[in-house]
Amino acid sequence: MTSKPFSCALAVRDYECDMQGVVNNAVYQNYLEHARHEFLKSRGLDFAQLTAQGIIVVVIRAEIDYRASLRSGDEFEVSVEPFMASAVRLAFRQQIRKRDGGLVMLDATIVTTAVNGRGRPYFPSELQCLLPH
Amino acid sequence: MTSKPFSCALAVRDYECDMQGVVNNAVYQNYLEHARHEFLKSRGLDFAQLTAQGIIVVVIRAEIDYRASLRSGDEFEVSVEPFMASAVRLAFRQQIRKRDGGLVMLDATIVTTAVNGRGRPYFPSELQCLLPH
Amino acid sequence: MTSKPFSCALAVRDYECDMQGVVNNAVYQNYLEHARHEFLKSRGLDFAQLTAQGIIVVVIRAEIDYRASLRSGDEFEVSVEPFMASAVRLAFRQQIRKRDGGLVMLDATIVTTAVNGRGRPYFPSELQCLLPH
Amino acid sequence: MTSKPFSCALAVRDYECDMQGVVNNAVYQNYLEHARHEFLKSRGLDFAQLTAQGIIVVVIRAEIDYRASLRSGDEFEVSVEPFMASAVRLAFRQQIRKRDGGLVMLDATIVTTAVNGRGRPYFPSELQCLLPH
Repeated sequence: MTSKPFSCALAVRDYECDMQGVVNNAVYQNYLEHARHEFLKSRGLDFAQLTAQGIIVVVIRAEIDYRASLRSGDEFEVSVEPFMASAVRLAFRQQIRKRDGGLVMLDATIVTTAVNGRGRPYFPSELQCLLPH
Repeated sequence: MTSKPFSCALAVRDYECDMQGVVNNAVYQNYLEHARHEFLKSRGLDFAQLTAQGIIVVVIRAEIDYRASLRSGDEFEVSVEPFMASAVRLAFRQQIRKRDGGLVMLDATIVTTAVNGRGRPYFPSELQCLLPH
Repeated sequence: MTSKPFSCALAVRDYECDMQGVVNNAVYQNYLEHARHEFLKSRGLDFAQLTAQGIIVVVIRAEIDYRASLRSGDEFEVSVEPFMASAVRLAFRQQIRKRDGGLVMLDATIVTTAVNGRGRPYFPSELQCLLPH
Repeated sequence: MTSKPFSCALAVRDYECDMQGVVNNAVYQNYLEHARHEFLKSRGLDFAQLTAQGIIVVVIRAEIDYRASLRSGDEFEVSVEPFMASAVRLAFRQQIRKRDGGLVMLDATIVTTAVNGRGRPYFPSELQCLLPH
């Protein structure tokens, strides 16, 4: 039995569009990050608080397939599906779909890890609650 | 008799915060612009469509008083109150208030005009509907 | 006798342009901030280090006159002229001029203050070196 | 015989850093795009002009390995090496290295294509000059 993945509803803001009249590529990473942080909140975690506590989670790899361009005024959903990519790598499958019609605009896999004071990757027990059980 | 001004509900996204852990100054202009464009939509106008039609509305002056800093997770309202600052200048009084408690974070006056093909300011009749009657 | 104010040479990057094909309003505040921080460096101060030391300098007011729009590829200079606006307010007159021809694109006055742990404004002695003697 | 790839020298600006005190992930895509557009200029092409002529080049895939974090004040080089990934896909290998010491901060492969008026990918002859001969 599978449950629906977490998703976050957003809309394009005009300042996010570039001279081609579409959302600039870099902005999608902002959307993806924001959706992951909202996912954390849905599980009782707060990225800013984790950072303040010294739990430094960083993105180590991003694979992004841009399938179609979002434009001014478009409403969309950003989904977040966590999985372990290795013992110390927490990854997220993410998809951006237009609300009107459900067209997939972007598919991504974002791989993160936590780094300790000596710059070594580890998996903080605080993040255990993010994983499917 | 006064009516409540238009306002737009937003929340801080973590990527908008800088190394001081607060929303970066420039980002507030994004919030203010987004609220103005939402105000246009509430009156049946669309900034991207106006631009595509050749109605180029530009900001010519911004006066911004930063009163307190928004932080990660803060929810806030951005208000928009239009007024004519001159025969060709459409201005907006804008305020950002925290939702929780109503603290004023920022006051601004943003002055805009439309520019025609020869770079001359004018007031397009299409914008008449934005003004209080 | 007056000396030439500090200035910082920059060029527009395409991702800074919006759907009108010109630099978005909010981006100019990034340029102004970057030039101020470069000015600090020219006097031996580093904004990130000041922040790390607990010297929190914030913008409390921005007055910006947008005179003409920067476009893709434009090269420009951002000047920085500090002055005391009150006993605890360090302000900066800033101007953006196109390199080719010297056209003034923007005039601004940015007022800053430092805030202590209780949120009270003060003037840190560390910033004394920024002022003209 | 191989020649040195094109590269573009940049420095971190403080507004690009986030609450962790390092450059935000999305900002690296801005750096990569800017370096590609500078590479175009080095070959006599201008992205804004191509766009104005109706030659719409879009990113369709980004693979980014984040190896170490850039911080306030860091100076770095962004390299650009074009290759054909298919008959209609122009790709770029890009690397960000710190100037001081040459540490690799990021490796990326960015795949682009041009899309015609009917949304179909093609390879515009105008871009031929970007490829190694």
